[in-house]
Amino acid sequence: MGLARGRGRPRSEAADGRILEAALELLLDRGYDRFSVDEVAVRAGVAKTTLYRRWPTKDHLIVAVVARRQDAVPVEYSGDVRADLNRYLGAIVAGLHQMRQAGRPTTADDTSAGLVAEVAAAAARHADVGVAVRAMFHHRNALVLTLLERARASGELHADVEPEVLFDQLAGALYYRLLITGRPLDAAYIDRLVISALRGASA
Amino acid sequence: MGLARGRGRPRSEAADGRILEAALELLLDRGYDRFSVDEVAVRAGVAKTTLYRRWPTKDHLIVAVVARRQDAVPVEYSGDVRADLNRYLGAIVAGLHQMRQAGRPTTADDTSAGLVAEVAAAAARHADVGVAVRAMFHHRNALVLTLLERARASGELHADVEPEVLFDQLAGALYYRLLITGRPLDAAYIDRLVISALRGASA
Repeated sequence: MGLARGRGRPRSEAADGRILEAALELLLDRGYDRFSVDEVAVRAGVAKTTLYRRWPTKDHLIVAVVARRQDAVPVEYSGDVRADLNRYLGAIVAGLHQMRQAGRPTTADDTSAGLVAEVAAAAARHADVGVAVRAMFHHRNALVLTLLERARASGELHADVEPEVLFDQLAGALYYRLLITGRPLDAAYIDRLVISALRGASA
Repeated sequence: MGLARGRGRPRSEAADGRILEAALELLLDRGYDRFSVDEVAVRAGVAKTTLYRRWPTKDHLIVAVVARRQDAVPVEYSGDVRADLNRYLGAIVAGLHQMRQAGRPTTADDTSAGLVAEVAAAAARHADVGVAVRAMFHHRNALVLTLLERARASGELHADVEPEVLFDQLAGALYYRLLITGRPLDAAYIDRLVISALRGASA
């Protein structure tokens, strides 16, 4: 290993992938409190030091897991922005529900935000985790902002629409229900939300 | 005290108010981590047991403090829904910034959600705190939903506007910026948000 580092071998993407897969599996199984970096090392078959060098705390590793999970959500403009937003927000909600229920029985019908709230609190508590979480959302949201820009360029949206403000209204409503009011998040709600945001309220 | 309880004396609203004032002051000064129920008892001049009987944990007391702070925000329909929403959301943002900076230097220019995230995490972690937080928002949001219903009845908003969905878009965007993306929350943003939500995006 000393030799390998001496040759300046780049970090293995495959090893990172294997570690993050193992970490996601453990996280969904255990939830935030009972998640353990050491156990991820055992499951992924790598040295603990490798993990800690790359992700110095449990919070850093969990943020990396969530970021990777979110990068898997496809974003593409089809020419029908309402359908595209319904599909995209549906994928976000599915991911949020999965994270929300991590480590809890799947029959749980409570409204706790679970891991989603723990990640938000970790981001607030540790400056570097906050930077990582905000970078993750910046990266992820860039894709849907591009979609909204394309819908605007095509004439489907008003020329003076601000994609970021519009997307705040959509994603914000989902996180607000999950983290704050505990109101239900389902496909029917997403459709009402998209209709409301696209149409506007003023008579 | 035994005698007073023996006569079935109702809980003193004045004492509750004094306790919650002392708790708010301590919370803003110290922040979440260094907030202490015992110290609130000392400052308010009441027995610790009185506090713990009413608010069994630190999280319960903090939620009561935040709820009381939020109840102070006025909500009234003036006939100009855009102005009313700007004013109301401005008051929410002022409260969020105050909570965000609790226990930290006022010169802090970081984007941490601070206490706001801690309350969301406490609500996710403890079922009864979650119930209390959701009840607080239900109570508080009922006022602004009534305002939106009145704006709809007056013809300022479309007849088929759903007040709850519209308010999710507004409040949601604020909490999303604070808790998730860390993007700035100021008066200019609030105005852009209200215009966007009232007007709609579809061409």
